[in-house]
This record gives sequence, structure tokens and C-alpha cells, in this order.
Amino acid sequence: MDQAGIPETLQGPARRQAGPPPAELLDFIRDGANRRFLVASHINPEGDALGSTLALSAALRALGKEALAYNKDGVPEYFRFLPGCEDISTGLPEKTGDFILVLVDCSKPFRAALEGVRFAKTVVIDHHELDPSRPGESAPDILWVESSSPAAGLMVYDLIKALAVTVDRAAATNLFTAIATDTGSFKYSNTTPEALEAAAALVRAGADPGRISQNVYETWTGKRMNLLCLALRSLEIRDGAAVMSVSAEMFRATGTTVEDVDNFTSFPRMLRDAQVAALISELDDGLIRASLRSKGAIDVRSIAQKFGGGGHRNAAGFRISASAIDLKDLRERLFKAIAEASPKGE
Amino acid sequence: MDQAGIPETLQGPARRQAGPPPAELLDFIRDGANRRFLVASHINPEGDALGSTLALSAALRALGKEALAYNKDGVPEYFRFLPGCEDISTGLPEKTGDFILVLVDCSKPFRAALEGVRFAKTVVIDHHELDPSRPGESAPDILWVESSSPAAGLMVYDLIKALAVTVDRAAATNLFTAIATDTGSFKYSNTTPEALEAAAALVRAGADPGRISQNVYETWTGKRMNLLCLALRSLEIRDGAAVMSVSAEMFRATGTTVEDVDNFTSFPRMLRDAQVAALISELDDGLIRASLRSKGAIDVRSIAQKFGGGGHRNAAGFRISASAIDLKDLRERLFKAIAEASPKGE
Repeated sequence: MDQAGIPETLQGPARRQAGPPPAELLDFIRDGANRRFLVASHINPEGDALGSTLALSAALRALGKEALAYNKDGVPEYFRFLPGCEDISTGLPEKTGDFILVLVDCSKPFRAALEGVRFAKTVVIDHHELDPSRPGESAPDILWVESSSPAAGLMVYDLIKALAVTVDRAAATNLFTAIATDTGSFKYSNTTPEALEAAAALVRAGADPGRISQNVYETWTGKRMNLLCLALRSLEIRDGAAVMSVSAEMFRATGTTVEDVDNFTSFPRMLRDAQVAALISELDDGLIRASLRSKGAIDVRSIAQKFGGGGHRNAAGFRISASAIDLKDLRERLFKAIAEASPKGE
Repeated sequence: MDQAGIPETLQGPARRQAGPPPAELLDFIRDGANRRFLVASHINPEGDALGSTLALSAALRALGKEALAYNKDGVPEYFRFLPGCEDISTGLPEKTGDFILVLVDCSKPFRAALEGVRFAKTVVIDHHELDPSRPGESAPDILWVESSSPAAGLMVYDLIKALAVTVDRAAATNLFTAIATDTGSFKYSNTTPEALEAAAALVRAGADPGRISQNVYETWTGKRMNLLCLALRSLEIRDGAAVMSVSAEMFRATGTTVEDVDNFTSFPRMLRDAQVAALISELDDGLIRASLRSKGAIDVRSIAQKFGGGGHRNAAGFRISASAIDLKDLRERLFKAIAEASPKGE
């Protein structure tokens, strides 16, 4: 599930198997000279970012290291069931230069709001295509990117096993949540046999799928349901494009915020005739955000790029100034851009 | 997922592991004297009923048997992607007495609308608690019931493996669909390690989780979405009970039928404060149907029983004559009954 509303890891069906953790990374972690770690992930963290951060920092501590868990944005309410989440700090230690930064679920420090912060070394563990932004930044000391892995949590699981750290109930819960949310609860095309096998092992280790899913998917507020009700009335489908919009007025009328539209794209997506699902949200900072999801036939990244955004083939997005265009005009432009991008429109 | 809207297999979290297929069943199938089979499941079939029927009948044919697949109600539109579903007959062969009936996902012939039909023998493969209805009926010749198994499809998978029949892509698709739908895509508390391991093996054998989920979850018609929109406006939560109702007028206004409310209980369920989710639907045959789902704290079977229905602790339902009560009064009675059943109400 894309909790953050930003492009996530819906990828095409053809996937090679991800590789094992590199020996270089295992040696680096085992090295007694490397003792102080700060594990961080991207802002607007979702299940994969948080579960990976928590499981990895706990595993490092189990190996006798000092390990801080950090996220600039803290833990959204609906992930506060994750074991250990109260230890995720939104502040940095004083002497960051004494710490090794481990970035999980993203590959550039600015994604974690850590640009310009000095660390002793940097390790990257990510399942996204290598982030091309800010090419001038110095490369990490160790880079482990597996773009064919469905979740950073699956990579962290493999790493923890390779380090011979016991996966306890807390780690199992964090890692099951990471894998389940990034595969849309094993519904997306990135659901590999390895993801399901890891999930099985994590349930054996104590993860409770029913309780986790209740926490992730069944903790809607009444306000959020009211917002969905209003948003659904704006849902319109034309020629394979299903577009739903959430206006500033809808947020106001229901007392909700932009966090509440997380995963709303799944509703236009449910329509049989939708090849592309789009959600347009009017943010309170003068921006309009568009989230695009494809069922596979249409490349939504190319559509997002036309509006200055980016992402993956099946999940992309962009932001545009509300002073440049209103919601209604943006809907029309989106319908047009999607029609042009559809195979028959070429 | 409960596609049929009737009580399904949401069960409690404490689950023992289901046993292997009994030797008696394996011997019976291998016996060259047993050559003609009719595989059938309950009316209003969902993914587990259909996937199990299709995979088992194909496996019997692979063993050189004659095997017919039967369902009184045929295949609902959103399951017509299941390989081989065009071979499911809604009619019986002339000489049913020459056939061995194999009931999957139910344990009594009347559940498949086969009461009074003569068969040579009867085999039952079911993951529900043994159905206590019609106790006077003769017992099946072979009864394999595993109430701790999350899906009949998982039992059929174990059976096919024990019979050393190759699980091809078609069988993998049918069985993955069976297991995924009955576990709510691995979200319900009945999601066992065995279910996830089988799912992994089925993906390796060719099942495509992304394509299957698109077919099962993302083929809503616009009319159905309009119905949801109206139904959501009726959603009300009081003291842990979230009740949604669909009136005959809503069906008329949107041009939908009772099939379209399948799984609508998942929406009231999404509310954080809902301990019980209820969906009341006004059917066109003068009945009102209520579907009750519990998140675990409240036993909804006992509530359904008060209205003459039944089911499981976490999933139950009942039907009541629309001439006896209207939707609004039933809502009130339901709120009251749920409040009385809640721990603090005792």
C-alpha cells in the first residue's frame, strides 16, 4: 500500500529474483570498528519505511551495536502499533559525525531530510531504482539496491537472517507489515514467491496478519470515511481514465487533512474499465498533488513527466501550483493526457 | 473475501495446524474402481468454492478419471477469469447414480442444491465446522473436514500434491484465488503460515497475484461504485457498531442487484471504532439480509441467532421478512443487539 500518496513500488510483472545481501555489507556490519549507527528512512514514512527502520535498528542492537532509529516526520498514527515505534526519534544526536547512516527504502539523504548532515559513513539499502536526483552528492560507502525486490523490508529480512540475528515477534511484526503494505497485502504484481515465503516465516516467528491488517487497514476515522464519501461523488471515468478529486473545501467540510487521502487511489482503481486511476488533492500549501496508478497497459510515469513529476511505470505523480490551474481544469488536462498516452490514442 | 455475502470463514486467531489428507481418501481416489466423479460446491459460489471445484476436477482428470464440475448457480461474472470455468455445468448428467459426488467447501448436499439427488458415493472436503443442518441425511462415505484450514483450496492443494498430480498454471491460478479470497488477501486472522507457503508455491507454479487481484478486486462497474456511494451515506457508528444499509430504492436508483453488495461489509469494518460491522440489504424477494462481521471482541453468531440466523463467531448473518420489519427499525434493533452483546454491555 502506498501510505504516503507519493509514487511507490507498483512495478511491472516481469521480475528477476533479488540477490542476497552483499558480503561487503555483512562484513561492514560485523566489523567491530563500526559501532554507532543511525537508521533512517524517507519523510512521509509508510509501513515499509518504518518496519524496515525498526527491524534493522533492533537487529544492530542485538549485535551489540548502538543503533538509533530516526525519521524526520515521526510515526503516523496508524503505524503506532509497530513494536518499538516509540523509539523512533524525530531529532538527531549531537555528534552525527560519530554515526554511520543507514538509509532504508530510499537512496539519497535528502529523501530523509538529511541533506548536508555529516555522518561517519553512509550505507544504502533500497528496493527502488537508484534515485537519479542530486547526482552531485557523494556516493554512499555501501550501496545495496535491489529494484526487483518488492519491499525494503524483504531485503532487511534477508540481511537479518544472513547476520544470524534471531527474528523475534517484534521484528516479525515490523517486517510483515513492511512487506504486506508495499505489496498491497500481496495483491500487487510485485508479490513474489520470496515475499510470500518470508511472510510465512514471519507469521511462524510471531507476526499476526489479522492484527496487523486491522491496524493498517481498519483504523479509519469517521471523518476520513466522510471524506471518502465526498471524494467518491467526484469520481468520473472516461475512456479508461478514472479521476477522483479532493478539494480544499472537502478537507474543510470534513475536518480532515492530506494524510487522510492516503491510498484513496485504490477506489478509482477498483473500476473494471479503469486502466489508469488518478487522485487529485488540493493541499493546504497552495499546491495540487496528483497521484497516478496504472493497471499495466499505460505508462503513467510519462504522463507525470509532462506535468513535471515522475515515478514508476505503474505508479507516478506530480505537484503543481494551485495558482496556475484549478482542480477542474487539471481534471480535464489529465483526462486528455491519459487518453493521449493510451495505446489506441497514439 | 466473502464474495457471497453469507457467513464465511473469518475465524478466531487461535488455530491448530490442519492435518494432511487422510489415507482413506487417497486410496479411494486412486482406486481404479472409482472412475466417474462430479465435483460440486455450494450455491452463491465465491473464489474458494470455484477455485477448489476447478482444481480438483482437473486433478481427477489428470489421474485418468472422468470428472464433471458442477455449480447450480454457475460462475459469477467477476470469477470468469478462472481457468476452465467455462466447463462448470449448471446442469446434472442424466445418470447421477453412476457418479461419485465430491462436495468441496460445504458438507451437506443441500448447500449445493443437490438434496435428494442420488449418487454412487459421496466425499466431503470442507474447511468449515461440520454443518449441523439436516442431521437426518445419510453420512458421506468419506468425510474430510479441517475447520482450522483457512480455505478448501488449501486442502485441495494438499490433496493434489499427495496424489502426485502436477500443479500447472491453471491449477495454480484456481488455488491461489481460492486461498487469497478466503483469507481476504492474507489479511484475515485465518492467514496461516501454511496458507502463505502454499501461495508462494502456487506463484512459483504460475499463478499471477497481480492479475488475479485485478480480476477479483478491481472489476467494479460504475453502477456498483454509485451504489457504494449511496450506501456509505447510510453508514452510522454507535458504541462500536457500524451499520450500513442498502435499500431496494438504492438498488433501483443505481440499476444494481444484490450481487453488487458482495464484500460491502469491508467498508463499515474499516472504521477504527467499529467492533462489529453490519450490512443490511433489502432483497427483491421480500427479505432483508443482514451480514455481521466482528473484529474479534464480540461474538456475532450469538447476535445472528437472536434473529434466527447463524454463522461463525466473527462472521454471521440472518434473513428476515421485509413484511415483519423495515430497514430503519432493523437498524435500531441491530444497534441494540450489538450493544447488549458487547463486553461492557453484559
